[in-house]
Amino acid sequence: MTFSTRIRFFPVRPGVGAPSSLLQEFDSDATPRQGPPRLARLRKAMSDSGVAGFLVPRSDAFQGEWVAPCDRRLEWLTGFTGSAGLCIALSRRAAIFVDSRYRIQARLQVDRTEFETREAGKKSSGVSQWLAANLTAGSVVGYDAWLHTRKEISALRSEIESEDIELRAIDNLVDRIWDDRPPRPARTVAPYPLEFSGEPHESKRSRIARSALGSELSAAFIASPESIAWLLNIRGTDIQRTPVAHAYAILNRDGSAELFARPEMFGESALEHLGPDVRIRNFDFLGDFLTSIPGPVLATESTLPDWVSNCLESAGIKLVFGPDPCEEPKAIRNAVETAGVAEAHLRDGTAMVEFLAWLHSAASDGITEIDAVRKLERCRVDTGALQDISFETIAASGPNGAIVHYKVTKHSNRMLRRGELLLLDSGGQYLDGTTDVTRTVGLGEIKPELREIYTRVLKGLIWVSRCRWPEGRTGTELDAFARYHLWMAGLDFGHSTGHGVGHFLGVHEGPQQLGGRSRAPIRSGMILSIEPGCYQDFEFGIRIENLAIAKKYSVAERKVGPKMLCFRTLTLVPIDLSIAERAMLTECERTWLNEYHASVLRQIGPRCTSSARAWLHSACRPI
Amino acid sequence: MTFSTRIRFFPVRPGVGAPSSLLQEFDSDATPRQGPPRLARLRKAMSDSGVAGFLVPRSDAFQGEWVAPCDRRLEWLTGFTGSAGLCIALSRRAAIFVDSRYRIQARLQVDRTEFETREAGKKSSGVSQWLAANLTAGSVVGYDAWLHTRKEISALRSEIESEDIELRAIDNLVDRIWDDRPPRPARTVAPYPLEFSGEPHESKRSRIARSALGSELSAAFIASPESIAWLLNIRGTDIQRTPVAHAYAILNRDGSAELFARPEMFGESALEHLGPDVRIRNFDFLGDFLTSIPGPVLATESTLPDWVSNCLESAGIKLVFGPDPCEEPKAIRNAVETAGVAEAHLRDGTAMVEFLAWLHSAASDGITEIDAVRKLERCRVDTGALQDISFETIAASGPNGAIVHYKVTKHSNRMLRRGELLLLDSGGQYLDGTTDVTRTVGLGEIKPELREIYTRVLKGLIWVSRCRWPEGRTGTELDAFARYHLWMAGLDFGHSTGHGVGHFLGVHEGPQQLGGRSRAPIRSGMILSIEPGCYQDFEFGIRIENLAIAKKYSVAERKVGPKMLCFRTLTLVPIDLSIAERAMLTECERTWLNEYHASVLRQIGPRCTSSARAWLHSACRPI
Repeated sequence: MTFSTRIRFFPVRPGVGAPSSLLQEFDSDATPRQGPPRLARLRKAMSDSGVAGFLVPRSDAFQGEWVAPCDRRLEWLTGFTGSAGLCIALSRRAAIFVDSRYRIQARLQVDRTEFETREAGKKSSGVSQWLAANLTAGSVVGYDAWLHTRKEISALRSEIESEDIELRAIDNLVDRIWDDRPPRPARTVAPYPLEFSGEPHESKRSRIARSALGSELSAAFIASPESIAWLLNIRGTDIQRTPVAHAYAILNRDGSAELFARPEMFGESALEHLGPDVRIRNFDFLGDFLTSIPGPVLATESTLPDWVSNCLESAGIKLVFGPDPCEEPKAIRNAVETAGVAEAHLRDGTAMVEFLAWLHSAASDGITEIDAVRKLERCRVDTGALQDISFETIAASGPNGAIVHYKVTKHSNRMLRRGELLLLDSGGQYLDGTTDVTRTVGLGEIKPELREIYTRVLKGLIWVSRCRWPEGRTGTELDAFARYHLWMAGLDFGHSTGHGVGHFLGVHEGPQQLGGRSRAPIRSGMILSIEPGCYQDFEFGIRIENLAIAKKYSVAERKVGPKMLCFRTLTLVPIDLSIAERAMLTECERTWLNEYHASVLRQIGPRCTSSARAWLHSACRPI
Repeated sequence: MTFSTRIRFFPVRPGVGAPSSLLQEFDSDATPRQGPPRLARLRKAMSDSGVAGFLVPRSDAFQGEWVAPCDRRLEWLTGFTGSAGLCIALSRRAAIFVDSRYRIQARLQVDRTEFETREAGKKSSGVSQWLAANLTAGSVVGYDAWLHTRKEISALRSEIESEDIELRAIDNLVDRIWDDRPPRPARTVAPYPLEFSGEPHESKRSRIARSALGSELSAAFIASPESIAWLLNIRGTDIQRTPVAHAYAILNRDGSAELFARPEMFGESALEHLGPDVRIRNFDFLGDFLTSIPGPVLATESTLPDWVSNCLESAGIKLVFGPDPCEEPKAIRNAVETAGVAEAHLRDGTAMVEFLAWLHSAASDGITEIDAVRKLERCRVDTGALQDISFETIAASGPNGAIVHYKVTKHSNRMLRRGELLLLDSGGQYLDGTTDVTRTVGLGEIKPELREIYTRVLKGLIWVSRCRWPEGRTGTELDAFARYHLWMAGLDFGHSTGHGVGHFLGVHEGPQQLGGRSRAPIRSGMILSIEPGCYQDFEFGIRIENLAIAKKYSVAERKVGPKMLCFRTLTLVPIDLSIAERAMLTECERTWLNEYHASVLRQIGPRCTSSARAWLHSACRPI
């Protein structure tokens, strides 16, 4: 069994100057034209199956942010490539429901004569209202119970039961008609070495079983691949960007586990690593196994496949709903993970500095957004440790910056222009940690209004980074610190201030969040992004993002008072001072910035090339 | 029908120098000794009724903060006088469940050999666990279905059903044995004049019916006396401090209403005011009426008496749960109310200034906390417009300041001492509005640590007062602004930053809140208290509180951006500058303070006596 740091999960092509794009791609085959003929065939299948409608969600059976090509049913059917959405096909009408982020994109990507685009979440356009308006009483709507969570289906079912519309779990009708469906690639599961995880899976399994199952529950059903990857110290490559293996786990009260997956994914080293207390079982036998569980099962309503829920309930096994028992422990870094992620940030910061130095030397020379993405990816590959990028790099210049989840394509690509801002949001997957950093860079002279707003965003970053708070507080309570200086000027931003980040896992992981709906307290050892921004449609986008880890803060001079936490910034990349208004910064804020830049220079300076170092010295000058 | 401003709801005794206490009382008859013999009699009644336990809550049938003497069953049975709690009597054991505020008070007030004191809310000491641990399967626990809400009972029932313990609605057993129970006073209902309410009840009824009932609901059951008082423009005196009448209302889809109450409470002017579309009905006929409602009824789970819920459900009438339809509209002040509450604050501010001037002249002359309460009450009475105090004045000197809900008694009373802080939290009920203000006053030289903490609290008040925020944000999101400067020093306070305030109604009204659990957005026209503080047990208490009204804020220079709100401070009382550390205040903060004090001086100066004015001039000096 090899615990080598040279495990390579993705076939990255090393070396500067590789001619083609590396990991990120810039075009998609999807077109609005593909939808209508496929929809016609789906309707035929619906009619053969005796259902009046069929649900086609973007999710696969694991509810993650990324979906493998063979699971992109929504894209195949409609042309829509966004990361969240649901199509409902009825015999005469069809609609695609997306959230506000994707409203415009969906309208552009799908055939509008066949698919109406509706914004989910708004009361009047809800899925259930649309179904009620378009179906007669007694209609049956089919769905694939693997692709929807228990929570989703039970909410929808309770909303439409009064309309006498039945939701019925059936075989997936898209799979039946999808002829040229890509095969599911034969991926393998790799052990995740103890030198990176810091805790053997035996220890994790027994402590989670002890804390979550108590004396009353037989087992926990764990549906999240990220949770399983953490719990068992394994990583996989079933999807891009998030190094997980597709599997479900059942954690028993004695700490042993059943791992339902494709057994061919497990080679000798994985089997040896998992040992006899983690029994690998074929997905096909999940149903049989579930019905043999002797007592109540802990599950998480928002991730539990409806199929599993139906199976347990029809066998009379009680389901007890609660949070995923791995979610919080996974979010709290141990000492080994904390040291690893610091190392990952040194490495990633060096790559970013090489890139920024290059950008400053070359920015006037006809560079496009795609050039920037490629160069940045190359700088990360050159670290020799990149496993994958942690998400599609956002390189948004000028007005493209206003599109919060902008992903450059050959169609949208534009030249970087002097006088504009370039918003760069990117990250790397390394064995010792996952990074995520945003910098907004001024290209040439930037007009005063933008400098003012940039400075307000920067003040928000500094405020959150400097703040201290009593243990037990949630990120919702800290969120406004990032916004105060924008609010005072009548401005705001529409996303939450920050998200949790996994450890060589998903770049967006809970339970912690800054803002948004999370009610999870921030605990010592949790990593959060701090990423205030400000956007104006068709004009500009500004965002500055660091990752930071929460840690204990002790106040020497106070005898009493609550236990306090504070942040330690992990990201080590200069923040563009050339577009900050010095006069708007308080002394405290300037001190924070100067100490931050001194630390970047001290830690990154010795690691970068001499040409980058010259730029770094100037970028880290005191303000 | 008289719309007179001279309506006097409470028999206040006017005039400075009245020898005895005025409204507030300083002792209570309750003793721990009263509990055991009464508990013995209750147990006899339980045994006669065939129940193994009986619930005795602090609430009356209207779930308000105040309870009339004839409804103080919990106090009568146990001696506990706090504003929230529940006693459970079993045949051999009894427990009183209180929240953390009342833990110490309950232990002091109840007989500890008979009643164990338990903190509700903590998992291991929950009511259901205690019942399960102390009762055998098959036991029946009785409760009075009028005194508990639907939400309370259904939560408890679902928790204990697995233990095979039955909760059964029965006649109130305390009422059966309470021989010397005070009579329910014969109070009358008074119309609340249009010159104060600003909107006829006909208009309120029709707009609420339209917005809340839509086409599907027959009626709304309104259980909150504050909501009814607002909806029908009536006020009453059934309890102290909150001028409501005890009644339930049913609002019909056509905007007409049924008002269930004691008909003798309605004199000619009230009947004329209410008109034919508000039908007064006797409480006794509520059940018959409920079962005749033709369709679904909107109700609020957290206020709906379990009795009403049972009655509707057993008649097969569907209950649809939602927020109280009056709660948000009631919280949004119209122009007349806004003008009224400004006038109330001028009047109340003048009374406070008279009091503070007196305190500064007399503080060294052997004054006690009770003297301060009496004098302050007298100053409010002298305005000639006081209807009641809005809650028991908190006058807490030195270590008493750390008890957040301190109410001075003859037993706890102490002399004000030089070198200590005096925390004063008080308010008045006036026909044109309800006030609530806290000032912390330094008596003589205050030590530097306290001055530093006081300044941090003051900075929190200023921060919230100055802040602007986009429409749609909740008070939870603004709460941390009040805490930032405390957190930075490792300090915090344990209560929420602010609460809504009624309009000549309850001093604590929702839905808005700063911090706490409320998810209600702050809307233009809502009033909130802003009251950061800091406390150290047995040492000191600091709190500074203003009321402020949310209003639109327009940013002239921005073309885009969200609609913004800001606060306008209502309270007009000097903030003690003698204990603030000038060097800790930023220029913005000093500007806010100086403008605030200039406004106090300009508005209150001309209204107060000449001796008070001299003090006011010095108190409002620029810092």
